Amino acid sequence: MSILAVGSIAFDSIATPSGRVENVLGGSCTFFSLAASYFTDVRIVAVVGEDFTAEHENVLKKRKIDIRGIEHAKGKTFRWGGQYLDNLNEAKTDFTELNVFERFQPRIPPEYSDSKFLFLGNIHPTLQTAVRHKMDGVRLTGGDTMNYWINGSRPDLIETLKLVNVLLINDAEAKSLAGEPNLLRASQKVLAMGPQALVIKHGEYGATIFFREGAFGIGRHPFRAPALPIEEVKDPTGAGDSFAGGFMGYIASQEELNREVLKRGLFYGGVMGSFAVERFGTERLQSLTREEIDARFQVFRELTHLE
Amino acid sequence: MSILAVGSIAFDSIATPSGRVENVLGGSCTFFSLAASYFTDVRIVAVVGEDFTAEHENVLKKRKIDIRGIEHAKGKTFRWGGQYLDNLNEAKTDFTELNVFERFQPRIPPEYSDSKFLFLGNIHPTLQTAVRHKMDGVRLTGGDTMNYWINGSRPDLIETLKLVNVLLINDAEAKSLAGEPNLLRASQKVLAMGPQALVIKHGEYGATIFFREGAFGIGRHPFRAPALPIEEVKDPTGAGDSFAGGFMGYIASQEELNREVLKRGLFYGGVMGSFAVERFGTERLQSLTREEIDARFQVFRELTHLE
Repeated sequence: MSILAVGSIAFDSIATPSGRVENVLGGSCTFFSLAASYFTDVRIVAVVGEDFTAEHENVLKKRKIDIRGIEHAKGKTFRWGGQYLDNLNEAKTDFTELNVFERFQPRIPPEYSDSKFLFLGNIHPTLQTAVRHKMDGVRLTGGDTMNYWINGSRPDLIETLKLVNVLLINDAEAKSLAGEPNLLRASQKVLAMGPQALVIKHGEYGATIFFREGAFGIGRHPFRAPALPIEEVKDPTGAGDSFAGGFMGYIASQEELNREVLKRGLFYGGVMGSFAVERFGTERLQSLTREEIDARFQVFRELTHLE
Repeated sequence: MSILAVGSIAFDSIATPSGRVENVLGGSCTFFSLAASYFTDVRIVAVVGEDFTAEHENVLKKRKIDIRGIEHAKGKTFRWGGQYLDNLNEAKTDFTELNVFERFQPRIPPEYSDSKFLFLGNIHPTLQTAVRHKMDGVRLTGGDTMNYWINGSRPDLIETLKLVNVLLINDAEAKSLAGEPNLLRASQKVLAMGPQALVIKHGEYGATIFFREGAFGIGRHPFRAPALPIEEVKDPTGAGDSFAGGFMGYIASQEELNREVLKRGLFYGGVMGSFAVERFGTERLQSLTREEIDARFQVFRELTHLE
């Protein structure tokens, strides 16, 4: 079933211990949609500037991503520069130029209205809420956010969270959102804000999904998926969005919507995140095959499953 | 089969957000042997002072731990004081009084010479090497160390590592020992120093075991066990030693010595670590049942296994 993803398209300039690239195609919507495209149909809503060329468009078209929702605005595309020279786990931002993204007002093409899954990328919570209200027929809404909104737009974010079924954030964001340093207690507080499930991403240690009592089935326990120990993380940019794309893409490809599907989705999220970091930007996500993805899923299983 | 454990017995004074205790029984050998005692026979070699009473001795005796190797020296037992008030993941040491531990020379009773498994707790690598040489009949040697020896007694430690089959250390120690920030590459460098397997403990994110090519069976992949998300970590002291006790204890209880056994051992390590932190000091480890342990093993399985 189709996923509609709303988020950013960006040009990233990145320095890591493995090298340096300038103005490569990036953004949450780009990583998410490329990762999800190996599982199901993906439609995107985003804004780009005049520097977004046919060549960039083709990266998405080749993966059969529906780009009718990309708005072409006057000016330059969102640009971000960052480095991971000291610490691969955390980007140090060199510059952020919002450009056309600053006035982004998501417009959803009528052809997208039958989308069954919705992913609200990391944009202002008020915009997330507005998009969600326009898509009342969706079966499941996934959402992302960041400390900038958690600290700066908390009341708006609280409203958004009431409309999100699965929230995907990292450890620091979960603790900050809940105001609670213990991860289990933090997860309970976040689930009380609205979501039926909460995915907390632990970077190189994988991710945990916590369920609200009775949501998506029964059971008291969370579920943890690993990350793959990787010899050379070339570029961590987009790993979290690729994780979300693999997670949501897999879920949208399944008939049933239950805990077992969400758990397998967590593994596929880890799989897509592990591919993303192997090359700079979206390079690795552009040229995968479903066979490679399923082979790595098996590696993730071997990493964690007893006989 | 019997395990011989060599390490410290201590009295700990600990402050955490959950409370404060003074001079409670602790030390690497104590946590290790209590955890391992639920799986197999355990014998210990350690030194205590005149303040170590029959009451303390009974904690070990009740778990049928063989204490004939405890040396009673003139003076006070090793004392450590620390706090986790700001960060449950890292102790801030308030004081260390080595006392009788300063001149500890492990003496192995002749009755211990048929031990099939050996655990070298975190003591000077030269002492670890001496003990290992006296126990040439063992089937498997596990070992621990810390940054103090990695940085301060590196040549001695390198000699010890040639004699250790499974090294158990944490992320920071592995990176420091290998001089390599990438965990997978660090594991390869440490395995090249001697051990056939390396267990890297990730605290609240579990642990990973890396195998040297061909050791304990075949396969290219490491294996990762989770930790249990816990609502209230009362006292993290001894979690790593309890992990090692569960890991080694389970392995020693099995006939076979192969990767599958080591993987299940990793789960039992996580299980015993998760119990240890639920109460201050060794309290929780004193009163477990094998049924509680196996029930939690099932929880760990549910945490990680797809259907």
